[in-house]
Amino acid sequence: MGKVITSKEQDYSQWYNDLILKGGLADYSAVRGCMVIKPYGFALWENMRDVLDRMFKETGHQNAYFPLFVPKSLFEAEEKNAEGFAKECAVVTHYRLKSDPENKGKLIVDPEAKLEEELVVRPTSEAIIWNTYKGWIQSYRDLPILVNQWANVVRWEMRTRLFLRTAEFLWQEGHTAHATAKEAIAETKQMLDVYADFVENWMAVPVIKGVKTPNERFAGAEDTYCIEALMQDGKALQAGTSHFLGQNFAKAFDVKFSDNNNQLDYVWATSWGVSTRLIGGLVMAHSDDDGLILPPKIAPLQVVIVPIYKSDEQKGAISNEVHILVKKLKALGIRVKYDDSDNNRPGWKFAEYELKGVPVRVAIGARDLENNVVEIARRDTKEKNTVPLTGVEFYIQTLLEEIQLHMFNKAKAFRDEHITRANHWNEFLHILDTKAGFVSAHWDGTAETEEKIKELSKATIRCIPLHNEQEEGVCILTGKPSKERVLFARAY
Amino acid sequence: MGKVITSKEQDYSQWYNDLILKGGLADYSAVRGCMVIKPYGFALWENMRDVLDRMFKETGHQNAYFPLFVPKSLFEAEEKNAEGFAKECAVVTHYRLKSDPENKGKLIVDPEAKLEEELVVRPTSEAIIWNTYKGWIQSYRDLPILVNQWANVVRWEMRTRLFLRTAEFLWQEGHTAHATAKEAIAETKQMLDVYADFVENWMAVPVIKGVKTPNERFAGAEDTYCIEALMQDGKALQAGTSHFLGQNFAKAFDVKFSDNNNQLDYVWATSWGVSTRLIGGLVMAHSDDDGLILPPKIAPLQVVIVPIYKSDEQKGAISNEVHILVKKLKALGIRVKYDDSDNNRPGWKFAEYELKGVPVRVAIGARDLENNVVEIARRDTKEKNTVPLTGVEFYIQTLLEEIQLHMFNKAKAFRDEHITRANHWNEFLHILDTKAGFVSAHWDGTAETEEKIKELSKATIRCIPLHNEQEEGVCILTGKPSKERVLFARAY
Repeated sequence: MGKVITSKEQDYSQWYNDLILKGGLADYSAVRGCMVIKPYGFALWENMRDVLDRMFKETGHQNAYFPLFVPKSLFEAEEKNAEGFAKECAVVTHYRLKSDPENKGKLIVDPEAKLEEELVVRPTSEAIIWNTYKGWIQSYRDLPILVNQWANVVRWEMRTRLFLRTAEFLWQEGHTAHATAKEAIAETKQMLDVYADFVENWMAVPVIKGVKTPNERFAGAEDTYCIEALMQDGKALQAGTSHFLGQNFAKAFDVKFSDNNNQLDYVWATSWGVSTRLIGGLVMAHSDDDGLILPPKIAPLQVVIVPIYKSDEQKGAISNEVHILVKKLKALGIRVKYDDSDNNRPGWKFAEYELKGVPVRVAIGARDLENNVVEIARRDTKEKNTVPLTGVEFYIQTLLEEIQLHMFNKAKAFRDEHITRANHWNEFLHILDTKAGFVSAHWDGTAETEEKIKELSKATIRCIPLHNEQEEGVCILTGKPSKERVLFARAY
Repeated sequence: MGKVITSKEQDYSQWYNDLILKGGLADYSAVRGCMVIKPYGFALWENMRDVLDRMFKETGHQNAYFPLFVPKSLFEAEEKNAEGFAKECAVVTHYRLKSDPENKGKLIVDPEAKLEEELVVRPTSEAIIWNTYKGWIQSYRDLPILVNQWANVVRWEMRTRLFLRTAEFLWQEGHTAHATAKEAIAETKQMLDVYADFVENWMAVPVIKGVKTPNERFAGAEDTYCIEALMQDGKALQAGTSHFLGQNFAKAFDVKFSDNNNQLDYVWATSWGVSTRLIGGLVMAHSDDDGLILPPKIAPLQVVIVPIYKSDEQKGAISNEVHILVKKLKALGIRVKYDDSDNNRPGWKFAEYELKGVPVRVAIGARDLENNVVEIARRDTKEKNTVPLTGVEFYIQTLLEEIQLHMFNKAKAFRDEHITRANHWNEFLHILDTKAGFVSAHWDGTAETEEKIKELSKATIRCIPLHNEQEEGVCILTGKPSKERVLFARAY
């Protein structure tokens, strides 16, 4: 009958793929490492994008659009950034195809249409944007520039996973320019807060705000701030990053401004981004073996109504009531669908909408109609209640809020249970292998130790939490002194 | 003082570029043929996109996202389509850069990272989408598929112009799949109507709906419907196209469905698109020598308020009143900005917002405040009126509607005056050279004559208007019999 989902227990990775594919969020494509975002998945992304876009605008940002291609000479200008991304670059070398003289109806790349300078398909846009800002900035009066771009980017990945790691993905990238380091750092932190607010209060996924170690910084950044979330298998997921870029890109592209004393200085920069990867995190944070569980605030559909009838007459009577209810729900701004199709039975529909993670299901049969009640099932807890039809729209409105809150609290309880302190190396390894989650441990602060721990345990330092408690201790690996614990985890 | 715009009369082409660049819509980029869409231009595009997106959703379409890259073997599957676009394709051949051993700090394309199969950067997405639809369609129950995508596409152009013709541009492309030709044709026409509705009622640009000749069809289409607009220099601009693709792509990608009699047949297709090119058309249809003139319904800013003061005290008193007015305007859904910056004088601001095409300017000085009036200037006609401050928000609301209507009527009167009938070849050439605009003339219906006319006059057949009057006549070039006039023009 319905679609079969591999259980989380049995094969977590397959469970995840089943949810994405059978839940109708995305599909594989003919292009290696690229995926197709299906209408249901894209509607989810649109809801996420629209909320974020509003938040960006409320914090003074405007959208713009910069070219997909970055000429190689610009790409390599900021050396660390270039070095960091060089291995993942799709490169356009030719601008024309022509008929294959040896193979009728086929095409070959025209060797005469070779570009003088190769074009990199943007893996991130700092280079092309700072090259543009050069022309926009002369004086402090031109600052700050607070610009965001919604775009596709390409990073050639060897091992890809739907949403979590794809060669092409959709994202937004904010790129701001400031007169002072202080202002740029404040912007970097502000956007981290915006991301945390969004992920916690809209996606119902709790996050830890922190700073990356130098090793894990964005290539070309002075500091990378991040939000880290925990998945149900105990692995961490970096959900968003906000970078203080210092004057690195301004120096690489020679972007100076005259301050109000007419002194020339390089401009200070930030960049920050979240991507369709968030959808992967959303799926892995909340779903169960019956399918997706989507938080009401961003679910494409919040309520589905399924009629249960044995005759056209019954269906007609039910539909009359439902049409009134649908209007009332829409008037409250609730996204509702009445699925009265005859192609599938109610049981099939129940399973399908559970799979798709619709937060609230309303079922209404002929006898319910007589009793003036409906059956309400919530997706997250699977609880069912029989509720009077009169005023049910307000019941549903409240229930959606309750589900949103409950999902966050559940994820937060799980996350909090999975932050474990380790004081010795063996304890550290034992926790990672048995309990997973974040491990809070002392580290001697060196890149070498960080690398060694990663090599031995496959765990990385996810972040140094903001406002981290200071505490004397010794590094779990080297025994050298340390002043604070950092958060380790195996991660996506 | 202000920015100087070349006059339309003096150099139409430079006038256009000045408007785009100095009006803050876009900027050149470091990538050949690609442009940067600046925040003001992007805000305009967002308004256009949002209206179109709503129209698409109201007609039952959903958004999705398909890969940027098309493997060459898929790209060449529909031969006519492939042939039509082959000459304009940016091609990705490699997936990695590496350090240049001979040039420290520089990068080269890694010859060892050559793709087995080249990837075409999509110039349009029929191939990748129909290859995907193959997996989505088995039976008539899976149809119709009504999907749209907002995306960037790349068509390598030798001669580019800001917005009108750029190597990369933003667009939407609808791709629908149907069980019958009739349904697909109805969809094609429906979307043409949606485009005409949008361009006329939101952009205030009148259009002629028609069908392209076989010569001018989209590569791979059975029929291309279009809307054609007229620019102020008398040249035509294709503003949108909607294609009936027949079963061409279904055959190329072997997409069959079983109908309700269990018979297998190929699926019927449409595709339709408009792009950022529309912004070029908008600019050329309405602007004057002082700058842009934007229709209120899509203008990023509808009203700007400029205070005129000689002291901080005066400014404070004016600002108090203006803050109340701004609230009232926003409550009416009007996009308003109060420019109280001290950096520039009122005269500079007047010129700047005229250049940017803000439909209504409100000026208020100390004496106005005493008299409880404001000065209202409309951008389109430059008329100024002194209006009581009390209730001025409603005056402005009505004025915005009036401007929208007036802009359309003015453009329509111009367009209607520039549709001229020609009955002889010399008359045809004379009209093109002296009056420009559309020329309505008989044509013998052959591709050869169409080509010859183009060669001799640089005019192309823009369309055969829908519901075209049937009339006996003779071809202006060959004298052969013809049953209807078609619309010729020189075009962008």
